[in-house]
Amino acid sequence: MNIEEFRVAAKSMVDWICDYYQGVEDLPVRSELHIGDVSSLLPAEAPVGPESWTKISQDFQEKIMPGVMHWQSPNFYAYFPSAFSFPSLLGDLMSSALSVNGFLWVSSPAATELETVVVDWLGKMMGLPQAFLAVDGDGNRGKGGGVVQTTASECTLVALLAARARQMEGRPLSDTGRLVAYFSDQAHSSVRKACMVSVTPHVRVIPTREDNAFSMEPALLEAAIKEDLAAGLLPFYMVGTIGTTSSCAVDPIGEMGAIAQKYKIWLHVDGAHAGVAAILPEQRHHFRGVELADSFNTNPHKWLLTTFDCSCIWFRDADPLKAALSLTPAYLRGKGNAYDFQNWEIPVGRRFRSLKLWFVLRAYGQEKLQAFLRHHIRLAETVAELIGKDARFEVSAPPRFGLVCFHLKDGKNEDTSALIETVNKTGKAFLITTDLSGRTVARIACGGFLTQERHVRATWQLIASTATALFTGKEE
Amino acid sequence: MNIEEFRVAAKSMVDWICDYYQGVEDLPVRSELHIGDVSSLLPAEAPVGPESWTKISQDFQEKIMPGVMHWQSPNFYAYFPSAFSFPSLLGDLMSSALSVNGFLWVSSPAATELETVVVDWLGKMMGLPQAFLAVDGDGNRGKGGGVVQTTASECTLVALLAARARQMEGRPLSDTGRLVAYFSDQAHSSVRKACMVSVTPHVRVIPTREDNAFSMEPALLEAAIKEDLAAGLLPFYMVGTIGTTSSCAVDPIGEMGAIAQKYKIWLHVDGAHAGVAAILPEQRHHFRGVELADSFNTNPHKWLLTTFDCSCIWFRDADPLKAALSLTPAYLRGKGNAYDFQNWEIPVGRRFRSLKLWFVLRAYGQEKLQAFLRHHIRLAETVAELIGKDARFEVSAPPRFGLVCFHLKDGKNEDTSALIETVNKTGKAFLITTDLSGRTVARIACGGFLTQERHVRATWQLIASTATALFTGKEE
Repeated sequence: MNIEEFRVAAKSMVDWICDYYQGVEDLPVRSELHIGDVSSLLPAEAPVGPESWTKISQDFQEKIMPGVMHWQSPNFYAYFPSAFSFPSLLGDLMSSALSVNGFLWVSSPAATELETVVVDWLGKMMGLPQAFLAVDGDGNRGKGGGVVQTTASECTLVALLAARARQMEGRPLSDTGRLVAYFSDQAHSSVRKACMVSVTPHVRVIPTREDNAFSMEPALLEAAIKEDLAAGLLPFYMVGTIGTTSSCAVDPIGEMGAIAQKYKIWLHVDGAHAGVAAILPEQRHHFRGVELADSFNTNPHKWLLTTFDCSCIWFRDADPLKAALSLTPAYLRGKGNAYDFQNWEIPVGRRFRSLKLWFVLRAYGQEKLQAFLRHHIRLAETVAELIGKDARFEVSAPPRFGLVCFHLKDGKNEDTSALIETVNKTGKAFLITTDLSGRTVARIACGGFLTQERHVRATWQLIASTATALFTGKEE
Repeated sequence: MNIEEFRVAAKSMVDWICDYYQGVEDLPVRSELHIGDVSSLLPAEAPVGPESWTKISQDFQEKIMPGVMHWQSPNFYAYFPSAFSFPSLLGDLMSSALSVNGFLWVSSPAATELETVVVDWLGKMMGLPQAFLAVDGDGNRGKGGGVVQTTASECTLVALLAARARQMEGRPLSDTGRLVAYFSDQAHSSVRKACMVSVTPHVRVIPTREDNAFSMEPALLEAAIKEDLAAGLLPFYMVGTIGTTSSCAVDPIGEMGAIAQKYKIWLHVDGAHAGVAAILPEQRHHFRGVELADSFNTNPHKWLLTTFDCSCIWFRDADPLKAALSLTPAYLRGKGNAYDFQNWEIPVGRRFRSLKLWFVLRAYGQEKLQAFLRHHIRLAETVAELIGKDARFEVSAPPRFGLVCFHLKDGKNEDTSALIETVNKTGKAFLITTDLSGRTVARIACGGFLTQERHVRATWQLIASTATALFTGKEE
């Protein structure tokens, strides 16, 4: 494919993308294929000679698209949203086109510098404490700063590694066997995975309760720490979540921070989905105490219109992180005051990801981004109101950050599961269920680029009428 | 930005990209900016209101582009190449446009299925043993298979975790303190980083010698293992490299494999850059013994025309990997024979990366991809011949896989460094130096999408004349 062939193919793909976004609302959200349906259409080996772009794009349309879940459909309510916006798409396109690798400042200076600037921009928008920012008001650099990682899973892992490096400084290696990490039973699976990967020997999963809205109970946390200290263990890492995956529960960061300081434990705050809500003054109370944290992460690639991957993490002091992940001797690190981001993460190689975040922050501006998040928070509240008016259902946890969970009031878990599967089968909406204290509940996560009030109203109508059909045998 | 504004902006960006590739040859390869030059041009905060695309793209051109290293310049010879091609760019664009997250089969079936198919395609092209493929000739699935990861750093880490899971099965947790990993002093830094992250307590770095072309010496490796076993330690993981970063040295995989089998140690083969050369029959001898490995990785995003990120890893048996990384109880794993790739990697979230690899493999076909790699191997040999004709220089290690290393025959390390820095300052080429047995050597890594023979000849001419100017005081 030469430049002119590319020009034609790329412009035609741009038109395809425009058509897709004009029509995605009408596509069945979930692919109804079975396992193997896509792969059975594909040959067992790569072609020997080149194939024409016409043939490839036709196969894409006919063989791949039927197996695609439409995450950007306005009626996609599963998991958390996978952000999309046109400015971000342009950023991804330019990043792929330049194809630079900014693992060192020198390997593409603009990549590192723009990343430092836009991650600070976002930190300021969220009201993060000055200590978390790379540059202060006078243009000076402190010990902290932020960086873009691939996923929140990597953020919680590198935060754990930094916490371990700080705790283990000056201690014998054998003390690693005494380390304890703390988080609630609502923390994301990646926190547990980070403990597996790093062979963290002791893990305390603090139970939560429905009548405390699935939030971490500081008294239980502190009791566990005291018990572990008495047993000669070494508490070193705790994770507080703002917006848990199951129900968007919020841990009391201020109280956890006080405990963290009292016992000298690293506090990481995971706001993978909901962290960006800190750009809203009226949501800021959920983040009270974040100034006591050692690190904080949120994913613009979930709810902030920035395509995957773009997960930001900030550190109050990045030195323990670099100690954990840098192979460069200390006297060479940060030479000339430049950031070499390969020392801030697991991978060496990295895309020019700040470009898309820069495009998004500028093309929307702070106020439109605030309006975008408020819109989804309001949509979830609208759904919660509709649920409240239907005596067969109840809301399972306070609606928050665009998420509302609900269940059949007198139904069995199987009934809620069957209801959701029946709804999903229509192709008119896609949502998933989760488990809250042994109860199967359905989640409606609002956050899609295209989701409007009419979509959530129609979806609720679909759910209600499906319940009628399933459980009373007659249509409403 | 609405759909119509996007259509215009995206098509204009496509034209910009075409212009860029038409002119990239004439741009200074390395940005000559100083630290802070880019960030000083950017405001300290995100705009409050939206900004026009005209203004944003103008700023991109004026403020960002001067700080960009031109990795796709035909005269970029540093590190290893960061692959680019037009079909891959289209794949990235479509992946960003659909913005699906294929962490589960069900979350976008085509993403998982296409990935399984194309990773098998590539495995077959490279002649990997059947055990490494997901599907056999009868369409049945075995225990092995491949997956796309973000980087080789993650590949070496997850291979280590799988090795550990296999070794530790049925052992007490305290045995983790006895684990030993083995690799040569030429292995990539990410192997050492993987040991740090996973707290591997014992690491044996086997020294290499110039007169053995910096290749792992099996006798030293086996002696170290015997010594460790005698000391009550638990050898569990060894890494052989095909194409080391410094000099493209090749470890003797067959001999390492025999040792791995004898002592029941996991053998991972890291072919991050050079692994793709296995698609060439005449290079296949470097890969002899790969059938004895437990896992193998290579990055199409380095040399195989597929934009970052796309790093493939294959496992003979993926069960230990899933044991190491899955939070799903064993009886639920791989339900319905579908792959849920979140259990094969550190992150949960993942892009639809197989799309670009599929586009590349089809748009080029196997024969053109072979021709592409042969072209660069020949270029490096051409440079080596030119070096051989200049009495002031000598080749530092056998030219291989598109890489040639050289140094000033009678010069000090500082002279070679000064020579390369002077060349880089011209903007006409960019290369880096490395250390081989205490000697500073320069690397010319051929692999760029646009690099032709005339470029490497002109670059060698530039190096030779710069040496003349620097060390004899007069131009050639």
